[in-house]
Amino acid sequence: MATDLRDLAASLREFAAERDWDRFHSPKNLAMALTVEAAELVEHFQWRRDDEALPAADLEHVEQEIADVLIYLVRLADRLDVDLIAAVERKMAVNARRFPLASSDGIAESE
Amino acid sequence: MATDLRDLAASLREFAAERDWDRFHSPKNLAMALTVEAAELVEHFQWRRDDEALPAADLEHVEQEIADVLIYLVRLADRLDVDLIAAVERKMAVNARRFPLASSDGIAESE
Amino acid sequence: MATDLRDLAASLREFAAERDWDRFHSPKNLAMALTVEAAELVEHFQWRRDDEALPAADLEHVEQEIADVLIYLVRLADRLDVDLIAAVERKMAVNARRFPLASSDGIAESE
Amino acid sequence: MATDLRDLAASLREFAAERDWDRFHSPKNLAMALTVEAAELVEHFQWRRDDEALPAADLEHVEQEIADVLIYLVRLADRLDVDLIAAVERKMAVNARRFPLASSDGIAESE
Repeated sequence: MATDLRDLAASLREFAAERDWDRFHSPKNLAMALTVEAAELVEHFQWRRDDEALPAADLEHVEQEIADVLIYLVRLADRLDVDLIAAVERKMAVNARRFPLASSDGIAESE
Repeated sequence: MATDLRDLAASLREFAAERDWDRFHSPKNLAMALTVEAAELVEHFQWRRDDEALPAADLEHVEQEIADVLIYLVRLADRLDVDLIAAVERKMAVNARRFPLASSDGIAESE
Repeated sequence: MATDLRDLAASLREFAAERDWDRFHSPKNLAMALTVEAAELVEHFQWRRDDEALPAADLEHVEQEIADVLIYLVRLADRLDVDLIAAVERKMAVNARRFPLASSDGIAESE
Repeated sequence: MATDLRDLAASLREFAAERDWDRFHSPKNLAMALTVEAAELVEHFQWRRDDEALPAADLEHVEQEIADVLIYLVRLADRLDVDLIAAVERKMAVNARRFPLASSDGIAESE
């Protein structure tokens, strides 16, 4: 079974190929499917207060939607030959520059 | 740097804690942010034909949006104590039952 | 200028035809564009508390996003030959049956 | 029954008030609900080719989703005191400046 993102990409690629799904899995369609799963995820929160805990039944569905989002995201990255981990590392470096710590001293001490 | 999803979750948790972002990062708000990043991703495809390749400049932006989606997804799962890899493995088992191969013989040979 | 939804549909149809946009405006693409505009709208709320008022600058952008959503929705309905007002009236009748008032007496008096 | 957007806003305001829904209908939550309905709409297109006609059963669901999007959009505009028609007229004026016709002569003749 998949234990990291590269293994997961390979498993999903095989799963789609066995079912002849590549003709549906254009990057455009996968990106659409991703937005649909993200919306199914957010739907569980839409009428709740910010600090309201999810009921257990909702949490279970949310787990499945989170999985669906990751599945389509990994599949999309694979179809576009995007290295997901490298892309995240680049983005985290950008974020670190964009949101510097106010005082590195204070943070260094609190860490 | 993050090399797998658990390391990535830990890095993002620390990054948010250092900036006192946890008060904004409710599961509800993270789920919303995820849908916004998913939409920024799909935007690059919206007026294109299914089989139309993305220009290089779009592909670069798409990589960043893919990274943003993964960042919010990992952060959301972390805030909800959801094990992302376990959730995906469960969902892939569900999908395997839901979409069985038409002929296991032919597929067994090709595997 | 457009004063009701039917006039608005006609104005948008003409605007698209004059720019030869119909080849991009497939129902699929218009539906995608609608989700993108909806996400740009929700983005203004994503890190706010539920009861937090929007700053004036955000409200102005939200107005534009609301307009964009309506524009794509009207355009999509027009491309699919859906009568928007009739569809809403049908849906409101469904909602009235689905969410009946707990006590019609009390409500009848308060109306 | 609602025949224009202002009447529709009034009907929806009354419907929500009678059910004591205003405590759920914050602008933030309504905007989220709008993105969810937009996703339910786009879902009917996600695995189709651009030029593929929707089957009748899908078209019927799409009509309902279109109605839901309009309902939440009108409700959101009402809660924010946004005049929907005025917002669209302003946006159409912006679009006319942003996408001028290449040659007004040619267009004038073809109209």
